[in-house]
Amino acid sequence: MVDGKALRIGVAGLGTVGGGVLKLLATHGELLTRRAGRPIQVTAVSARDRSRDRGIDLSGLRWHDNAADLAVDDGIDVLVELIGGSDGVAKQAVEAAIAAGKPVVTANKALLAHHGASLAARAEAAGVSLAYEAAVAGGIPAIKGLREGLAANNIREVHGILNGTCNYILTEMRTTGRDFADVLADAQRLGYAESDPSFDVDGVDAAHKLAVLTAVAFGVHVDFRSVHIEGIRHISALDIAYAQELGYRIRLLGIARRTEDGIEQRVHPCMVPISSPIGATDGVFNAVVADGDFVDKVVLVGRGAGEGPTASAVVADLVDIARGRSTPTFGVPASALEVAKASPISNRRGRYYVRLMVVDRPGVIAEIAATLRDQNVSMEAFLQRGRAPGEAVPVVWTTHDTDEAAMQQALATIASLDSVTEPPRMIRIEDF
Amino acid sequence: MVDGKALRIGVAGLGTVGGGVLKLLATHGELLTRRAGRPIQVTAVSARDRSRDRGIDLSGLRWHDNAADLAVDDGIDVLVELIGGSDGVAKQAVEAAIAAGKPVVTANKALLAHHGASLAARAEAAGVSLAYEAAVAGGIPAIKGLREGLAANNIREVHGILNGTCNYILTEMRTTGRDFADVLADAQRLGYAESDPSFDVDGVDAAHKLAVLTAVAFGVHVDFRSVHIEGIRHISALDIAYAQELGYRIRLLGIARRTEDGIEQRVHPCMVPISSPIGATDGVFNAVVADGDFVDKVVLVGRGAGEGPTASAVVADLVDIARGRSTPTFGVPASALEVAKASPISNRRGRYYVRLMVVDRPGVIAEIAATLRDQNVSMEAFLQRGRAPGEAVPVVWTTHDTDEAAMQQALATIASLDSVTEPPRMIRIEDF
Repeated sequence: MVDGKALRIGVAGLGTVGGGVLKLLATHGELLTRRAGRPIQVTAVSARDRSRDRGIDLSGLRWHDNAADLAVDDGIDVLVELIGGSDGVAKQAVEAAIAAGKPVVTANKALLAHHGASLAARAEAAGVSLAYEAAVAGGIPAIKGLREGLAANNIREVHGILNGTCNYILTEMRTTGRDFADVLADAQRLGYAESDPSFDVDGVDAAHKLAVLTAVAFGVHVDFRSVHIEGIRHISALDIAYAQELGYRIRLLGIARRTEDGIEQRVHPCMVPISSPIGATDGVFNAVVADGDFVDKVVLVGRGAGEGPTASAVVADLVDIARGRSTPTFGVPASALEVAKASPISNRRGRYYVRLMVVDRPGVIAEIAATLRDQNVSMEAFLQRGRAPGEAVPVVWTTHDTDEAAMQQALATIASLDSVTEPPRMIRIEDF
Repeated sequence: MVDGKALRIGVAGLGTVGGGVLKLLATHGELLTRRAGRPIQVTAVSARDRSRDRGIDLSGLRWHDNAADLAVDDGIDVLVELIGGSDGVAKQAVEAAIAAGKPVVTANKALLAHHGASLAARAEAAGVSLAYEAAVAGGIPAIKGLREGLAANNIREVHGILNGTCNYILTEMRTTGRDFADVLADAQRLGYAESDPSFDVDGVDAAHKLAVLTAVAFGVHVDFRSVHIEGIRHISALDIAYAQELGYRIRLLGIARRTEDGIEQRVHPCMVPISSPIGATDGVFNAVVADGDFVDKVVLVGRGAGEGPTASAVVADLVDIARGRSTPTFGVPASALEVAKASPISNRRGRYYVRLMVVDRPGVIAEIAATLRDQNVSMEAFLQRGRAPGEAVPVVWTTHDTDEAAMQQALATIASLDSVTEPPRMIRIEDF
């Protein structure tokens, strides 16, 4: 494979990441030639608008208006797909490149979350790599670390902070005491959040990445539709303050486990111990924790997005391809990927934090306690402070291990009580 | 390369790690066949004492009394060297395997630290892999993460907790308030420290690993002899308590940087912020932090030793070999490795913590302050508490950025003062 001949790259999509890839390849040409065994050279590109000034020198590069045409350009050996989106142009281009026998490097988690299994089968049939380090946790070598570095382990669990925008918002809320909407508006002004923030703050982006990690960790078909997804819109400054008081941080986590009932995949806010690696990961950073039966827990932390870190991951994949290093898309042959049963969130058993706003009057606590008792929910800690007779005050408790189904039942009953003035807020506690 | 034929392994050394490798291969045979594309099968072994009961089933495996004979056994495709030691049997066996055209997997950091450059050249000439994930940071995929995962970056710095025994001792000292000798004795009783602990507590083991990481990070010849090494024997419970008060943890770190004056490599106790990833890594864990120009900082944390984690790393290397994935030993061709100038510790510039024991009498502080002023050492914080006229009391300060050479000069002068009753204790502060 390594014959000294340049590896010719076609880059589809010239946004932030595409520009970063071109910049990186230009900056480190010599270093990369030594590491890759041969030059890595962009020869053609494609983007929506040819006339836009991107501040990148595109002279000498062939231009294609259509990414699918780029994919089959005889002058490229590898397609780098940085268009994004689960279908449409990105999918067409990736499929065209594979069909033409060309390896693909992509940062597109949505595409993999929705079509990972079929694309893996196509890549394998064509005998080419489908590489996607940049699709999960940005610059962190999480896919390589898990798929190759921990290849000797039966992975029991993988979890992590997979969306830097959410982690930035939650960190800002804690350090400034401000509320979600306020911090989100700031994040949008600073460019840390999109003008339509729902993919990030509603947990969809993290779920895309989790679905991919799950496939790698457990050797199963990507099953995005089975991911239970909750976002962070409901997290209040009050809950963040209570978390701190209880020794926790609130993080939006993706968690995947192999259980007796099947594969559990969920994205939701969690309370995690302040001193845990996940609890200590503040700001825009991502973290991925894998738990293997021989290696135990391995924690990887770094920047999950941005021009430089994402370009770093894309080019690492290109170095692998230039060196002739290849690995089945999800760690095992596509035909060996298991179609695993999904274990729904209602099967979760664990600890919970609950906050209610209740009218401060006699008998309210007794009523709530009776509901919890009826559902076999056992309280661990209970906080009620200050008095404001006749007004709404917060009441907070944490539970011992409890079944999700019982918890949901108890919350539904509690929500219907006259004295409860707002929907109960529940956050799952994970004692990693 | 991947032809479905079993990859036949010879294991030299059947101690804890060797036993772990055999156990792992036996446990995960089917999983590994899927991930590696073919079975990985131990066919022959070698160890010092054939009669010893290791609790491992060796039936059906060819036995060699001599590891060098195992290395050239026609029935093995790969040698796994788990003997240890920088010379002697281990080196002979590794060289014999390479000469016979067989890839080698080793966990031997001493061997690589002393003979890395020549072994890399031999492996390259023979066209075989020399893999050593287990030699640095145990189960953490640090070599793969750095050498492949961050291959697109110019690495500016790498640092980490590279010796779990020292980190365990320092953590125990902090949480129990006990002194070094006391905790070391306990660690020896528990099997966390060797009966001769000097390789660990004097920093030699960490320095071996740092020298290897340095070569990978910067593409330079392994240069163990240039590593500045200090151990943890002088760390007192008093210093650990002061560190806590100042917002720091004391860690034994390995640090390598590319500077204008050459490659800086040092192993010594450091004070690091409590909330930094390194500060948050307690107990037997290892941590490796790499700082790349595009990716920024990536942190990898996990178990740095022990049967399971080390076996995990060894077998990950075997999966790479079975799949035909290979990488130059230190990331670039051996002929391209730079013979870099070493920057000595005296070139360091940074902050310092100093503790003196001084006789509590008038004029002492003025004398010390004058010495520091004469060397242009600027104090940042100064702590002196309690009074015990005529007796020795601790005096502690931290400095602003200061040249190591000036600091050493000031300490030599201060040590000679009549009022100073013990050698000054200095710990470098690293604000990662």
